[in-house]
Amino acid sequence: MTEQTIEINLSNNKKEKPNPDQLSFGKVFTDHMFTVSYSEGKGWHEPKVTPYQPITLDPASMVFHYGQTVFEGLKAYLANDGRILLFRPKKNLERLNLSNQRLCIPTIDEELVLSGLKKLLEVDKEWIPNAPGTSLYIRPFIIPTEAFLGVAPSNHYQFMIILSPVGSYYKEGINPVKIYVEDQYVRAVSGGTGKAKTGGNYAASLKAQEGATSRGFSQVLWLDGVEKKYIEEVGSMNIFFKINGEVVTPALNESILEGVTRNSVLQLLKYWEIPVSERKISIEEVFESYSKGLVEEAFGTGTAAVISPVGELSWRGENIVINNGETGTIAKKLYDTLTGIQKGDVTDYFDWTISVDVK
Amino acid sequence: MTEQTIEINLSNNKKEKPNPDQLSFGKVFTDHMFTVSYSEGKGWHEPKVTPYQPITLDPASMVFHYGQTVFEGLKAYLANDGRILLFRPKKNLERLNLSNQRLCIPTIDEELVLSGLKKLLEVDKEWIPNAPGTSLYIRPFIIPTEAFLGVAPSNHYQFMIILSPVGSYYKEGINPVKIYVEDQYVRAVSGGTGKAKTGGNYAASLKAQEGATSRGFSQVLWLDGVEKKYIEEVGSMNIFFKINGEVVTPALNESILEGVTRNSVLQLLKYWEIPVSERKISIEEVFESYSKGLVEEAFGTGTAAVISPVGELSWRGENIVINNGETGTIAKKLYDTLTGIQKGDVTDYFDWTISVDVK
Repeated sequence: MTEQTIEINLSNNKKEKPNPDQLSFGKVFTDHMFTVSYSEGKGWHEPKVTPYQPITLDPASMVFHYGQTVFEGLKAYLANDGRILLFRPKKNLERLNLSNQRLCIPTIDEELVLSGLKKLLEVDKEWIPNAPGTSLYIRPFIIPTEAFLGVAPSNHYQFMIILSPVGSYYKEGINPVKIYVEDQYVRAVSGGTGKAKTGGNYAASLKAQEGATSRGFSQVLWLDGVEKKYIEEVGSMNIFFKINGEVVTPALNESILEGVTRNSVLQLLKYWEIPVSERKISIEEVFESYSKGLVEEAFGTGTAAVISPVGELSWRGENIVINNGETGTIAKKLYDTLTGIQKGDVTDYFDWTISVDVK
Repeated sequence: MTEQTIEINLSNNKKEKPNPDQLSFGKVFTDHMFTVSYSEGKGWHEPKVTPYQPITLDPASMVFHYGQTVFEGLKAYLANDGRILLFRPKKNLERLNLSNQRLCIPTIDEELVLSGLKKLLEVDKEWIPNAPGTSLYIRPFIIPTEAFLGVAPSNHYQFMIILSPVGSYYKEGINPVKIYVEDQYVRAVSGGTGKAKTGGNYAASLKAQEGATSRGFSQVLWLDGVEKKYIEEVGSMNIFFKINGEVVTPALNESILEGVTRNSVLQLLKYWEIPVSERKISIEEVFESYSKGLVEEAFGTGTAAVISPVGELSWRGENIVINNGETGTIAKKLYDTLTGIQKGDVTDYFDWTISVDVK
């Protein structure tokens, strides 16, 4: 692919930045966005940084009808030495293209996207909050824009990146959450789209989340769609258990999203020589191990919360409290290490962060 | 619900109507659309008929990210006596609300939608084509519009109806199609969203359809997501087989969309005293029955094609040709009866059609 020049149109109308102490998630957006268009014949073209602005589409545009969308989520951090750090962005862009393939969307040049993201960050660098626990959430996404009601892949797409300054996921450090094990609704199944980061998976999850919330739980733990027996994910995070000295996470399959944080956690655990395995794990095994006193920790992993300890699990009316409802040693160590690497405060053993050069 | 007044703003800029002999599906839209807005607190409000126009949304609008969309598809016909006929619209609006419930979208007043649809048809009545086999395709849909990146039901929605004049689905009557039995990809699973008409189900189907097309088949026959054994749907239609004198269709479950045409076909078959049953049917049973010479017909049912005969089925490399690749007697009779009722040419035994009064 020939290198494409990224056009830059700056905004004349700078918005007021939010109070860094009152940041929530995904409600405030920066002054600019990065877009690339796709049309059949031309491929991905016209990469540009423009003022953040509304999208105008025909009501028949496919995005409103057939859900052929993909997205990613990652973060930029302001290090104490002033550098802008990205955490493993290439993993997200690789996954974006895996999602594209599943959804019949043309793959996009990962280098072009990374260049565009860097330009966008350069332009909106003042939006990166620097209070502890804050970061700039990055949302790349692709929507089909052709105005056509036939069920078929679109011939036109729009790729976009928007940015949102976000606060610490947990106000006072990390806090264990109560999880409801869902055995009626299913998030994904082998042969479906669970491995891809596409809108439909999230739409499918809302009903179960609504039920969990009404029962007083924070999130849902998903079981496999075939036997409703094996553990898959928690909310929109991957899940880990420490059972009898070994850390276990469900092996990847067609219905589990491969999290970048999951991958990083696995590498850290191996580096620390903590026994770890990726394998099938049933909810029954967790409850049985618990009754033998062997479940030491449980935690979710994802970009938003990084590490989210599980304090309580409820399955078929039975509740178990893990580690006295407190954050476990490993969860804490992972959280401190990962957020430390992300902020540039801890040695980046694995060259995970990429520094964005700002002129 | 208090009755809401539907505001009407007519277009000053009438578009040219397409040549009725060259109509395709879902590419040309009429001069107006019907919309209703939803916001928390206000509920569904501001029903109005307006000129057909683009939608302008913030890039963070949930429709671009989390697939919380639902839609319907039905048709209006111009009868030979000049009446405008709708085919069982209340069934579609009931199903719209079932889809809404699964997707955590607030239900909408079905009477209000029907009134709005009638007003819209009145305004755009000249767009209803009258050539044989043509009709006006009606697409109601709902999109979440709140600008928020949290995974949660939206607090704002837009309901819309757009209209598209469409040609005969088959250029020269009905023609049997070749179908590929998909045993890798899955459309839906129990506990998922298969029963709802939501974008994600259609996005999930694209990859399998691409594979079927590249192998020379028109459509995919979907098996259940758990055992990949039981027949569910064909393309985006329901499926029927005539085996040894009995017509069989898969019993409804959580992963099958309840088609309005399916329901109508069942009623007609019972009325005609043709043996019919709704039950689980495995793909193995179809192939075994075929080897005994018992498979007499197969056909799909749906709004777009009404009845679509299946001439050939391919499963795990084995191909079977049904009824010599020709349209069966029952498929033909159903097609003629249903399209006849829809156009007002055949006695409407069941009061299926609703006539739209035009001033």
